Amino acid sequence: MSDFPKSVKINEEGPREGFQIESGPIPTARKIEFIEALSGTGLKHIQIVSFVNPKKVPGMADAEEVVRGFRPAPGIKYTGLWLNEKGLERARATGKLTLEGKISIYASEKFSMRNNNRNTAQEFEYAHRVLDQYKEHGIPVERASVAAAFGCNFQGDIPTATIVDIVRRIFQIADENAVKLKEISLADTMAWATPLSIKRTVGALREKYPDMRFNLHLHDTRGMGIANAYAALEMGVDMFDACVAGLGGCPFAGHKGAAGNVCTEDLVFMCQEMGIDTGLDLDKLLECARLAEDIVGHSLPGSVKFGGSLARLRAATRH
Amino acid sequence: MSDFPKSVKINEEGPREGFQIESGPIPTARKIEFIEALSGTGLKHIQIVSFVNPKKVPGMADAEEVVRGFRPAPGIKYTGLWLNEKGLERARATGKLTLEGKISIYASEKFSMRNNNRNTAQEFEYAHRVLDQYKEHGIPVERASVAAAFGCNFQGDIPTATIVDIVRRIFQIADENAVKLKEISLADTMAWATPLSIKRTVGALREKYPDMRFNLHLHDTRGMGIANAYAALEMGVDMFDACVAGLGGCPFAGHKGAAGNVCTEDLVFMCQEMGIDTGLDLDKLLECARLAEDIVGHSLPGSVKFGGSLARLRAATRH
Repeated sequence: MSDFPKSVKINEEGPREGFQIESGPIPTARKIEFIEALSGTGLKHIQIVSFVNPKKVPGMADAEEVVRGFRPAPGIKYTGLWLNEKGLERARATGKLTLEGKISIYASEKFSMRNNNRNTAQEFEYAHRVLDQYKEHGIPVERASVAAAFGCNFQGDIPTATIVDIVRRIFQIADENAVKLKEISLADTMAWATPLSIKRTVGALREKYPDMRFNLHLHDTRGMGIANAYAALEMGVDMFDACVAGLGGCPFAGHKGAAGNVCTEDLVFMCQEMGIDTGLDLDKLLECARLAEDIVGHSLPGSVKFGGSLARLRAATRH
Repeated sequence: MSDFPKSVKINEEGPREGFQIESGPIPTARKIEFIEALSGTGLKHIQIVSFVNPKKVPGMADAEEVVRGFRPAPGIKYTGLWLNEKGLERARATGKLTLEGKISIYASEKFSMRNNNRNTAQEFEYAHRVLDQYKEHGIPVERASVAAAFGCNFQGDIPTATIVDIVRRIFQIADENAVKLKEISLADTMAWATPLSIKRTVGALREKYPDMRFNLHLHDTRGMGIANAYAALEMGVDMFDACVAGLGGCPFAGHKGAAGNVCTEDLVFMCQEMGIDTGLDLDKLLECARLAEDIVGHSLPGSVKFGGSLARLRAATRH
């Protein structure tokens, strides 16, 4: 328990990862309403859109319109996701988003082949080219990112040694390009992680990279999201991607009807109850969670929005 | 991680805790169908009914009929819950259940007043009388049980010192009655626990009672169920109450629409994936979870029944 961080930073991805997987079209105005509501919760980083192929992800076809329409609040970093040069161009063209590069590799070669038609060696070659683009456009690169880091529906278990090797090669590429990395982000894209594998993998990497800040991107498909986050907190991890109401899921991960990303307000509830500062207003997050359900038109998996927080109950018992 | 148990015992409470909270009447035959399906999963203990006031818990009015009707499988302990002498008499009269006594105290005096109209001092007096009844009927008593051990919607936070003191007094009563306790069971009746409070409370008690086996009864109302179970595993806890599909919830806890007990198959999934033996067949549990949804007529909170286990995916990647 001694490694608990004092505070935790949460990167909200609900508007991006959440809305891209919904089957029904969501009006642009409602996306903007949601982003602006999130802006009032204390969040400092909200990923609001992805610039991906509208034929493959029709829910994100209005990305430019969303970015154009929302009113940014001061002190908040609004970002978008891109997966290739065309996406980066679209993000740059908005002139309104914070642009951050990363060196991103799939731990699963099969998933990489399916999504990008590149094997792992080709992924690393591609990473060099991506860094050239970032350099050209003056986009800072501070993050090493590994997707499908804990297992893959198409490849199976991913050994810790594979992750360690991939991260080593990412740092090598960074060195060769005079890029100074500050963060290692691990994504459990297809919800294969358990608290034990989180501890094993983060532990192995933390030993090799004691100065790096770790970020986890967790999915709750098999109900392990919060337990995995807890295990990460025990390892000192102090940064998480999360989605209000548990919105989200990867549209290419090959499972349906499953819970999405780890739920922001449930994670915040756990942190607050354990004395870990998040800087976030839980009640306002719960309002955003209910707004998200209203927008998508169905119930979403987060629990605290049903069970309620403890603050009001505590206050009531004091009378 | 070193304190992980090698194996974990799960006490299934779905038929009892699950069906008592459902608003619609469930046909006795379907309850029996569910109990018999659970009997084929490897479970060694299934709590199948409660003998409570049918006016207060109409869903359990057919308890005797359920017990009469089901076919017990060899090697499985089938139990019922009772809260008073009348309930005990009904359980005894069935002649078909394993009868196990316990010394049970509410950590929350306000909850005890609401439910039993007894303050904590009166609860301890009452415990003496209950032990007399168990002695009279030859019912073994091995368990110290504390309800609302981590917090109460009516009383607020429960300090660890309160739990430690209650357990001390339970052991004192056991001594006075020549009862040799073997287990300490803590119930997070109203879902106030976090992994940290689980560790703190179990840790404090384990230090004082190193030879006791610990059992946890966890609710998932605020999404902490699996994370709390994980924290307990890290403390060496090797026994859990759980409900298939996440059925359940306490009908008197004062919240509605919330998730129920910690979900058996999600807990089993986590244990199996971390190399902890449960003796249970996950696929058969998933079938029971789907059967439970069919019986109650609505979706239930467990995640693995949506997300799927990893065994089939792993097998597919080997080709």
